[in-house]
Amino acid sequence: MDNIFAFREVIEQYKVVFFDAFGVVKNYKGLVPGIEKTFEYLEAEKKEYYIVTNDASRSPVQLAEKYHQMGLKAISHDRIISSGMLAKEYLDLKVKDGIAAYLGTTDSAHYIESSGLHTLRVKEVTADNIQQVNALVFLDDEGFEWCRDLNKTVNLLRKRTIPVIVANTDDAYPLNVSEVCIAVGSIATMIENIVGKEFIRFGKPDSQMFMFAYDLVREKLQVTKKDIVMVGDTLHTDILGGNKFGLDTILVLSGNTLASEAETRINTTGIIPTYICQSAVIE
Amino acid sequence: MDNIFAFREVIEQYKVVFFDAFGVVKNYKGLVPGIEKTFEYLEAEKKEYYIVTNDASRSPVQLAEKYHQMGLKAISHDRIISSGMLAKEYLDLKVKDGIAAYLGTTDSAHYIESSGLHTLRVKEVTADNIQQVNALVFLDDEGFEWCRDLNKTVNLLRKRTIPVIVANTDDAYPLNVSEVCIAVGSIATMIENIVGKEFIRFGKPDSQMFMFAYDLVREKLQVTKKDIVMVGDTLHTDILGGNKFGLDTILVLSGNTLASEAETRINTTGIIPTYICQSAVIE
Amino acid sequence: MDNIFAFREVIEQYKVVFFDAFGVVKNYKGLVPGIEKTFEYLEAEKKEYYIVTNDASRSPVQLAEKYHQMGLKAISHDRIISSGMLAKEYLDLKVKDGIAAYLGTTDSAHYIESSGLHTLRVKEVTADNIQQVNALVFLDDEGFEWCRDLNKTVNLLRKRTIPVIVANTDDAYPLNVSEVCIAVGSIATMIENIVGKEFIRFGKPDSQMFMFAYDLVREKLQVTKKDIVMVGDTLHTDILGGNKFGLDTILVLSGNTLASEAETRINTTGIIPTYICQSAVIE
Amino acid sequence: MDNIFAFREVIEQYKVVFFDAFGVVKNYKGLVPGIEKTFEYLEAEKKEYYIVTNDASRSPVQLAEKYHQMGLKAISHDRIISSGMLAKEYLDLKVKDGIAAYLGTTDSAHYIESSGLHTLRVKEVTADNIQQVNALVFLDDEGFEWCRDLNKTVNLLRKRTIPVIVANTDDAYPLNVSEVCIAVGSIATMIENIVGKEFIRFGKPDSQMFMFAYDLVREKLQVTKKDIVMVGDTLHTDILGGNKFGLDTILVLSGNTLASEAETRINTTGIIPTYICQSAVIE
Repeated sequence: MDNIFAFREVIEQYKVVFFDAFGVVKNYKGLVPGIEKTFEYLEAEKKEYYIVTNDASRSPVQLAEKYHQMGLKAISHDRIISSGMLAKEYLDLKVKDGIAAYLGTTDSAHYIESSGLHTLRVKEVTADNIQQVNALVFLDDEGFEWCRDLNKTVNLLRKRTIPVIVANTDDAYPLNVSEVCIAVGSIATMIENIVGKEFIRFGKPDSQMFMFAYDLVREKLQVTKKDIVMVGDTLHTDILGGNKFGLDTILVLSGNTLASEAETRINTTGIIPTYICQSAVIE
Repeated sequence: MDNIFAFREVIEQYKVVFFDAFGVVKNYKGLVPGIEKTFEYLEAEKKEYYIVTNDASRSPVQLAEKYHQMGLKAISHDRIISSGMLAKEYLDLKVKDGIAAYLGTTDSAHYIESSGLHTLRVKEVTADNIQQVNALVFLDDEGFEWCRDLNKTVNLLRKRTIPVIVANTDDAYPLNVSEVCIAVGSIATMIENIVGKEFIRFGKPDSQMFMFAYDLVREKLQVTKKDIVMVGDTLHTDILGGNKFGLDTILVLSGNTLASEAETRINTTGIIPTYICQSAVIE
Repeated sequence: MDNIFAFREVIEQYKVVFFDAFGVVKNYKGLVPGIEKTFEYLEAEKKEYYIVTNDASRSPVQLAEKYHQMGLKAISHDRIISSGMLAKEYLDLKVKDGIAAYLGTTDSAHYIESSGLHTLRVKEVTADNIQQVNALVFLDDEGFEWCRDLNKTVNLLRKRTIPVIVANTDDAYPLNVSEVCIAVGSIATMIENIVGKEFIRFGKPDSQMFMFAYDLVREKLQVTKKDIVMVGDTLHTDILGGNKFGLDTILVLSGNTLASEAETRINTTGIIPTYICQSAVIE
Repeated sequence: MDNIFAFREVIEQYKVVFFDAFGVVKNYKGLVPGIEKTFEYLEAEKKEYYIVTNDASRSPVQLAEKYHQMGLKAISHDRIISSGMLAKEYLDLKVKDGIAAYLGTTDSAHYIESSGLHTLRVKEVTADNIQQVNALVFLDDEGFEWCRDLNKTVNLLRKRTIPVIVANTDDAYPLNVSEVCIAVGSIATMIENIVGKEFIRFGKPDSQMFMFAYDLVREKLQVTKKDIVMVGDTLHTDILGGNKFGLDTILVLSGNTLASEAETRINTTGIIPTYICQSAVIE
């Protein structure tokens, strides 16, 4: 790879930085070593920063706590924009009453709770309450028994014509250096194909994530899209989504995309970052 | 169909109305008869209204002129939001210089012209200028020779790693009561599959169209998503897109979706409009 | 529906009849009432008949026993052609030694056992034996723990470049009058999308099922494709597959395709049976 | 690449060799240099050989003539199995009378002519004869005006519920060292998506091609699948199709798959040839 830029030199040009979480700020071992310097720099330079993540397994408050436990105090809950927040906004705006059935942990479900709407695990849907189920949400791959509850989900969707929201669009996520887990996005696609209905997906690369973040930034600061850069390790989510929304983008080589394959992948996919940097760490 | 609502009663509840163009305001014969009354009502009630259309074949100014020629003066160019405007915004923000090659009429191309960027028909790309081509835009199904220029497009994308923008995502559009035309969205999908790259699509149901409109409205008026209703004749574009963005939606039966099949299609697709009305005409 | 033909009149014209199993000969309650008369007629008329089924959960011998228990003695094991037999043929021809890991019941796995090849449940693959795993087979949706074993399958396929065989291509199957189950075909598609590899699918509508049956028939009888008719209840598998192979086809309305929707579905899908009959029962 | 085998040593083990045409026997410049030696060897050793090709643009007789003109006399027309032959078999078996409309050159159409069935270019379909159109065949990307005739095809399929046959499933084909052409398979997929109907595809990797060849061989010779090897340059068609049919396969590096990328592509796609050889030329 030619043209590897120093991260600091690139972000100097922007007022706001959006970070992907996994592969950029943290990985399966914990924080990316040295990343706290990046946030010290941003604070010192008074640049705004946000974490834009497809993680809908926990609320921003819980996600922020995790960063604090790992020693990164800079990331407060109001700097985290997750695809779960869009699922919640959808329910707030579009589903007035009844039950939102969900697949995921109870942690993930607390978060989408909304006035007037009751959340219920798919396993708890019965002949008695099925007529009150007015939405279904895919939140996380954990917290339910796959065989029993996915079959139940298919039959629920054959009986009720209701909106289905997928709060995490990822196909898989890394567990450790050599293994991945199936993410709820893949599971949702399987169910969607079986029932033949159109699900509503939030999460990068979809623009609505970036729009949500952009709206938040503009409440604090007068900026345009030219002032923001998106930093990510994955071409198909972070870079494609950032590009489409009109942001400049930085591909970092500390996660999903290895240095040895970055150029080939960019040429093959046609997804072109504005810059490539080794990592989001400022040396 | 039970539950057909009177259009007037529904829109009374909202401050802003987004209209799809084809099948709602106009059809292949001209204006939907009586539609001018709807706009008189909106003006009298001081409600804001916008046309949100996947038509990238002409600029808003040219589209507005067409309405005026048909006798509908209410629709000024600044009330038209087209997917072509998002293509232009993308080029403005993301492609600094060089050539944007395009497939479409010269009318459609005038519109995306941008400072510093030169537009060129695909047929005019040569060995001499190909290295300056920094973007490709699918604008319209007319204005080029399909066999020659689509083959040329495939080979251009094999030689240049550049962003590809699809300004009209529709698969087909109606020509008359019994016939349709292949739209540029279908052509783009064919090319995308051949070259194996990821294209950037604007146009309903993608949220970015609604976001663009929402941003424009908020410059004039203090509103939230709850104040806006989207009116359309097509479940997969207007209603799905409106729903996902968090708007209430009205399916009208004056275009793509016939009264006899509306209920079946809603159940089959799981795309559920907030209301169904016979048409957007106020009686 | 006009043009409903009497089943007897139609099959009189053919020497060989291929039957789909579920929705034609049996359903979730047991045998289709009266179906034994059809087989008495076929025996009396000396017509050949075969069951051509995507059921890979049991061997033909076990499947035949089930028919005998339900009171249908006519269906001997050598008249059953299942997609599992093609999986077995593949392993016999193409995988010389080592381990074939599988997802399914042990019943289904006994059947694919092959000389020189050891079958092993995915859950039993370990660091010690993974290098001997030379094929993976999706046999049935039962017999394994979905969450644990599907995640294990994904990681197995990331470590080993081996052929993957899907012995049942169905998306879902009926459990009772109102409920379906997710079939292993859907699960395989999910895994295929995650790992990005090309799986090998057997089962209708794929021609190889029909070819296998056709080869068997020709060992006994001198016939051409014109002498054979395929009877099924599902347009996308039985009718599409039979048509493509060059057979005449009969859609029966005793299963997946209801009388009220047959005409619409034929027009929508463009999958056209040669004849439509109420059922495969001879009155 | 380790493990490159000498072509001669590999084919010594088989009684029958199936060859892909393009990238194996010929390329855009003419014959693969030295390939005539391979056929001399096969003749001397009394091994059977066939060309198995997705080329439906000409009849086997015309394709054989081309080889003779290039100096390769060994390939007689009865050794060529094309996907066009399967289209013809389909029409013979399944479409009794009326008109088969087609997209392609008149050369390609002569070939599918069948007793009782009249072939007609799509451009010649009119209001007067449309009710006689009982099938549509995609034969070749040449011989018609794309914009006019593809739009006409879409509207024909909206008016008539008829079988649609795609005789060449390739997406693109090479024109010269750096350029490709869009093949009729891509065009057919575009139309299929627009009209929402299920087309019938012949051509590798579909098994029916291999079955057709296998049936022909067995008329002459008593062989099993173990006696046959398929030689091809493309993983997704030749190797995948050969593998699935149960044949051993040889990937040659003289066409679509470059030596530098063969290993990566095999690992990425999971399509595994039995052997890899530099080319099909015997040194």
